[in-house]
Amino acid sequence: MRTRATEMFGLDLPIFAFSHCRDVVAAVSRCGGMGVLGALYFTPEELETELAWIDAHVDGRPYGVDVVMPASYEGADFAPDELVGRLQGMIPPGHRAFVDDLLARHDVPPLTSAADPGKVLLGWTDATARPQVEVALRHPIALLVNALGPPPADVVDLAHARGVRVAALASTPRHAVKQVEVGVDVVVAQGTEAGGHTGEISTMVLVPQVVDAVDVPVLAAGGIGDGRQVAAGLALGAEGVWTGSLWLTVEEADTPELARRRILAASSRDTVRSRSWTGKPARLLKNAWTEAWEAADSPGTLPMPLQFMLVSDALRRIGRSEAAELATFPAGQIIGVTDQVRPTKEVMFSLVEGYVEAMERLTAITRA
Amino acid sequence: MRTRATEMFGLDLPIFAFSHCRDVVAAVSRCGGMGVLGALYFTPEELETELAWIDAHVDGRPYGVDVVMPASYEGADFAPDELVGRLQGMIPPGHRAFVDDLLARHDVPPLTSAADPGKVLLGWTDATARPQVEVALRHPIALLVNALGPPPADVVDLAHARGVRVAALASTPRHAVKQVEVGVDVVVAQGTEAGGHTGEISTMVLVPQVVDAVDVPVLAAGGIGDGRQVAAGLALGAEGVWTGSLWLTVEEADTPELARRRILAASSRDTVRSRSWTGKPARLLKNAWTEAWEAADSPGTLPMPLQFMLVSDALRRIGRSEAAELATFPAGQIIGVTDQVRPTKEVMFSLVEGYVEAMERLTAITRA
Repeated sequence: MRTRATEMFGLDLPIFAFSHCRDVVAAVSRCGGMGVLGALYFTPEELETELAWIDAHVDGRPYGVDVVMPASYEGADFAPDELVGRLQGMIPPGHRAFVDDLLARHDVPPLTSAADPGKVLLGWTDATARPQVEVALRHPIALLVNALGPPPADVVDLAHARGVRVAALASTPRHAVKQVEVGVDVVVAQGTEAGGHTGEISTMVLVPQVVDAVDVPVLAAGGIGDGRQVAAGLALGAEGVWTGSLWLTVEEADTPELARRRILAASSRDTVRSRSWTGKPARLLKNAWTEAWEAADSPGTLPMPLQFMLVSDALRRIGRSEAAELATFPAGQIIGVTDQVRPTKEVMFSLVEGYVEAMERLTAITRA
Repeated sequence: MRTRATEMFGLDLPIFAFSHCRDVVAAVSRCGGMGVLGALYFTPEELETELAWIDAHVDGRPYGVDVVMPASYEGADFAPDELVGRLQGMIPPGHRAFVDDLLARHDVPPLTSAADPGKVLLGWTDATARPQVEVALRHPIALLVNALGPPPADVVDLAHARGVRVAALASTPRHAVKQVEVGVDVVVAQGTEAGGHTGEISTMVLVPQVVDAVDVPVLAAGGIGDGRQVAAGLALGAEGVWTGSLWLTVEEADTPELARRRILAASSRDTVRSRSWTGKPARLLKNAWTEAWEAADSPGTLPMPLQFMLVSDALRRIGRSEAAELATFPAGQIIGVTDQVRPTKEVMFSLVEGYVEAMERLTAITRA
């Protein structure tokens, strides 16, 4: 398979795979696609460890790193050393009480250890994502991706100076145009069915609009889980596909066992776009947590990054408890079709096989 | 192009077009696709007139009729002669006051004529849709479609006895299985991006799931507006595509001028799934009307068919007024790409041309 995206990176397959797990990233790249490591949850030191591991296990194949540099968030003008403190002060006590009460109602025990101060904000801000970018650019990465809008122009220039291509996720054609204006090389057109931060327009409707709006290669994201969907994404004009939720259940993934079981059992109706994770709309597993924030007594969510700061300890407490009904995480509608645990290599193979079958079927329909 | 769907009906193209306008229906069928007339707004007498006109203008090509027989609604067990009266009595005065107040705030003048008593319920119930079915089956239709779930088994049998195939719209694989169990011949797998009543799962995610769940031909619906999307729908495993919003702006459509202008100007973010039209979630043009029902002072919507009975006079008043900001109607996300008025024949031609181009591109990607 050959597109401008495979040519740009020397790939065998136009399949991009986002994962927070280094094993998945390396396995996808070794199969001829491109693994992209989500850096968000790692401190710069941890990220250094992960990337060194990938370098040693990727057999010289290209891979990428995904960071979150939101174009807008509360505290963007605060000095880095006072950022966390000032943001903490902006969280209303009523919101803290709502979270405490929600956890109490579900009998979630308190934490026995304090949060790592380096993880209170994660990579949710420009200030906390930049050190991740610096680490990433010290490694032989092929692609730097920004998950929330156009990356800062100086970050694009820095990447380009190191020979690294830059991609960004877009949920409207207007976003895509802005991203290309700051120098983005690849646009990931992500439909509303995708997991994590996502817009309103579906992949089917969005991809052709983005393809028509920009000159750079476009990847189709959102709802890509089998070879038919790869073919559909390319039919829409994309030059590759971007996958994510598909990799939560592969053998190599370090997804917690409880989450993995829930994904395997979920239907495509078990996700919802919610601000309850970060303050910006993200598709999450729908459960008592997402519903609590929609209920009549909800105080409403806070803007990014306050909402995550408000709930991060709560999510840790839930993760370590038996309160499975509150444990939510980013997940796309495609989780409705993942019902077995397979090695990454086997999933990559089935994507290609399914694509070839879809093409044979389309060719037969067209010739008749 | 040949699929089981084209074979079933003797079509040249696996393109189905839903429209409330007879001219569009006949034009699509004459082009080798299948036009399907939405019967909802017509009294049985009016429907007779429309179908007689189509019979005279369709050159013997196959066409279909779409009715709404919801599997569940308030008053399903009321006697037909007391249905309207009892339902009217179930509408809370507070809801009527909310609608009156909303219209007053937007300076919408009262109606000068009373509503046609035959149009208070439209075809929103089994009782009011059955006479439409009887009229439809007196004409040489090829397809009877139910827009809201599995049609009653006796209606399926009646259609089959006349040699008429039956289709139904499904928004989950479970719905599709139930429909095939009652004898449906074709399943329309409709994604959340579609206009009108629609579910939560996107076309990209839904279609392969439905294809895998049933043995009958599946049509891909939701987000189909150009040839790339036709190719994508077929790549997903569908044997045809079902289009709707695309036809609101064609030359032949009797869409009111104001609505047509708003569709041409809309982006794909200008629609929303809302219960404010009928009580069941339907994708509508997003505006002051849909927002009013979501606002803090909204009394909430009523179940089908009470909501439509509550608002039908209001929608007539708005339609005849200058209150353009309140005029909503069913519309899919694809309205974001319709920006010109073209003859139906030209749109059909461009769908085929775009499909062929997409196939050539896919073939080149695959061979390389």
